[in-house]
Amino acid sequence: MSVNLTSIREVALKARAASRAVMNLPSGVKEQALLNVAASLREHVDFLKQENVKDLDAAETNSLSAAMLDRLTLSERVIDGMGKALEEIAVLPDPVGKITGMTRRPNGLIVGKMRIPIGVVGIIYESRPNVTADAAGLCLKSGNAVVLRGGSEAFHSNRAITKVFRESLEKTGIDPNAVMLIPVTDRAAIMELLSLEDCIDLIIPRGGEGLIRTVVEHSKIPVLKHYKGVCHIFVDRDADLEKAYSICLNAKVQRPGVCNAMETLLIDSAIAESFLPEMTRMFRDHGVELRGCKRCRAIIPDMVTAREEDWYEEFLDLILAVKITEGLSEAIDHIENYGSNHTEAIITENYSRAMEFLHQVDSSTVLVNASTRFSDGGEFGLGAEVGISTSKVHAYGPMGIEDLTIGKFICFGDGQIRQ
Amino acid sequence: MSVNLTSIREVALKARAASRAVMNLPSGVKEQALLNVAASLREHVDFLKQENVKDLDAAETNSLSAAMLDRLTLSERVIDGMGKALEEIAVLPDPVGKITGMTRRPNGLIVGKMRIPIGVVGIIYESRPNVTADAAGLCLKSGNAVVLRGGSEAFHSNRAITKVFRESLEKTGIDPNAVMLIPVTDRAAIMELLSLEDCIDLIIPRGGEGLIRTVVEHSKIPVLKHYKGVCHIFVDRDADLEKAYSICLNAKVQRPGVCNAMETLLIDSAIAESFLPEMTRMFRDHGVELRGCKRCRAIIPDMVTAREEDWYEEFLDLILAVKITEGLSEAIDHIENYGSNHTEAIITENYSRAMEFLHQVDSSTVLVNASTRFSDGGEFGLGAEVGISTSKVHAYGPMGIEDLTIGKFICFGDGQIRQ
Repeated sequence: MSVNLTSIREVALKARAASRAVMNLPSGVKEQALLNVAASLREHVDFLKQENVKDLDAAETNSLSAAMLDRLTLSERVIDGMGKALEEIAVLPDPVGKITGMTRRPNGLIVGKMRIPIGVVGIIYESRPNVTADAAGLCLKSGNAVVLRGGSEAFHSNRAITKVFRESLEKTGIDPNAVMLIPVTDRAAIMELLSLEDCIDLIIPRGGEGLIRTVVEHSKIPVLKHYKGVCHIFVDRDADLEKAYSICLNAKVQRPGVCNAMETLLIDSAIAESFLPEMTRMFRDHGVELRGCKRCRAIIPDMVTAREEDWYEEFLDLILAVKITEGLSEAIDHIENYGSNHTEAIITENYSRAMEFLHQVDSSTVLVNASTRFSDGGEFGLGAEVGISTSKVHAYGPMGIEDLTIGKFICFGDGQIRQ
Repeated sequence: MSVNLTSIREVALKARAASRAVMNLPSGVKEQALLNVAASLREHVDFLKQENVKDLDAAETNSLSAAMLDRLTLSERVIDGMGKALEEIAVLPDPVGKITGMTRRPNGLIVGKMRIPIGVVGIIYESRPNVTADAAGLCLKSGNAVVLRGGSEAFHSNRAITKVFRESLEKTGIDPNAVMLIPVTDRAAIMELLSLEDCIDLIIPRGGEGLIRTVVEHSKIPVLKHYKGVCHIFVDRDADLEKAYSICLNAKVQRPGVCNAMETLLIDSAIAESFLPEMTRMFRDHGVELRGCKRCRAIIPDMVTAREEDWYEEFLDLILAVKITEGLSEAIDHIENYGSNHTEAIITENYSRAMEFLHQVDSSTVLVNASTRFSDGGEFGLGAEVGISTSKVHAYGPMGIEDLTIGKFICFGDGQIRQ
């Protein structure tokens, strides 16, 4: 699968040319196109499964874990899920063309902003082949062309999904080059892609922290990303303990392997003795391993001692770090020092401390009396999620398709010149 | 002026700590602080001029051009101008805390976005020392800490301005580390700065294309920038010729050295013979050198022939490239091929072609029947301009202080957990 790197540039140039064709597609055309792709994926179940088997065989030869194999498998259910996701994307409101802030300047010039597609989006991802259909669908809906670079484990599956997607677009009369797959998966291809500042407007990496750090280090193109989600819940001295038990349990165990699950629990020392024993019992009933600070262990002696590195850790598993703090301000300091700017929550009935937490914590999502698991595009009403950004640039927190557009200034004059 | 690079990190860490102190400053405190700095700069005219002389002496020794010397000089007028700029920034509406899109989700969770400061902004700039006060003022007003890295030519001037700024902040009770100047100006310092992803949230380079390309190539931190402004005006066959003459002349000659001046004039072939001779006469009366395509030279035989590289050129001077096109679509293609995504205008009385230009041209500012010179934060009502972005990420076009903030999600719950 090695290839002349000039071909990466050719792939990107084709997407660039196609981006001009899709930037102004009528909403109805984009909607119908995505519904057609969904139907087409379901029609081609046999072809997709047959190509997927090539990846699965290679994965077995390379002794990939059972979890990896599961993520890689295109079952009928997974393919139907890709179709459903595209159908949901199809009917989202079109973000392109939205006009905001039109004002009339003193000289009569009428100025405002109109949202336009970003242009060409590069998506670099690992493993799950359904990301291929998802990402292409989100980009097309928002008027963007996309250059996809999936992982080597899923090469045949990604190529098959892209083929079906492109053929369906072509039948709908849309330039199929709006969806391009890089025909190789080696590292040199990523490096080449990241240098094509004149063809690609934005890079979104989706995968492990290692992949994302490599992309950020080498990209000349702006990158939207999050490294990890070390999410905190602070249980304040005035927390309603019933709410606290329920929210903390939900945030940790409802789906521990995702980035908005709680990784560290902070507890105000004033309520630690009344709160921690029952909370510990509930966590342990659900198989959660607790790693606590010294003060925690004074209350629950058989708790594992948390090491310094546990405070930075995104466990993505039934493991939780627990710390008792001297009130709110130590908790905020801890989040500032160890957090990842993803999602934090406070549980309290005290109005002023709720507002202080809301203002002082500068993470991309800050909640009062609700589970961190709500930090999600769908839950926030953005529709399908493009990704999550923990950098304070372009978007912060869960991103919807509107975040795949940008506002350009439009000005209506009648002969104005600058004095 | 060499220095241990660990000190760059220390500088940035001080700014990071200060950013937490300034992120929630009340609007009135920030306003008063900036008014105090303005007054203080005027009080310290002698000190500032005395430090500036050190830079001017070095500049003469290094045989800098008269234009460079002029840009470098801190006259009483320039210092007063810095004060006025800060006074204007002081009274701008505070962008921090603005809440948008609050909605109630079906589960009762109330979700919306609140604008917060970006955090620590790194500004890398050349030459003009007044940028020091301007940039620090814009960052403070928007609740950000700033790390400044000016050019070596202006080192003593920048250090003096920063000193006065910081002392004034301290008197107002604001952490002076919110405004930090990198104590060295060599390239290694820039490289170190661009790697401090954990201390600095955003980099804004201001200067020549070479500086900006270096920054983009090496930064791990998101960069907001524009490389250059190759701005176009297209004179359509249905242009009101009087408006066209006036707008084109204004866009070229009113201030030729700035990025929103017109660099290439595109003319619909259907009106070229009636429009070009009079337009040429007017340009030549104002000392503009025209470089035309073959078809231009068929009408104005003594016009210089434009070379291929002229179409890419940001002349920043009384030079203009001129091309006759087969109507609107060739003009749009030309802008797509040679443009810089900065600012383009169409002159026409034809409604449909005006709207087509507005939709098809994806530059950051698109105008109908007005001069490209209006592409400016002040003219668009944003207040003082932070810079211009020609990348379709975060901001596109002139940026005001609101672009130094970002929306975080805030959520008010009453015990919600994810199902």
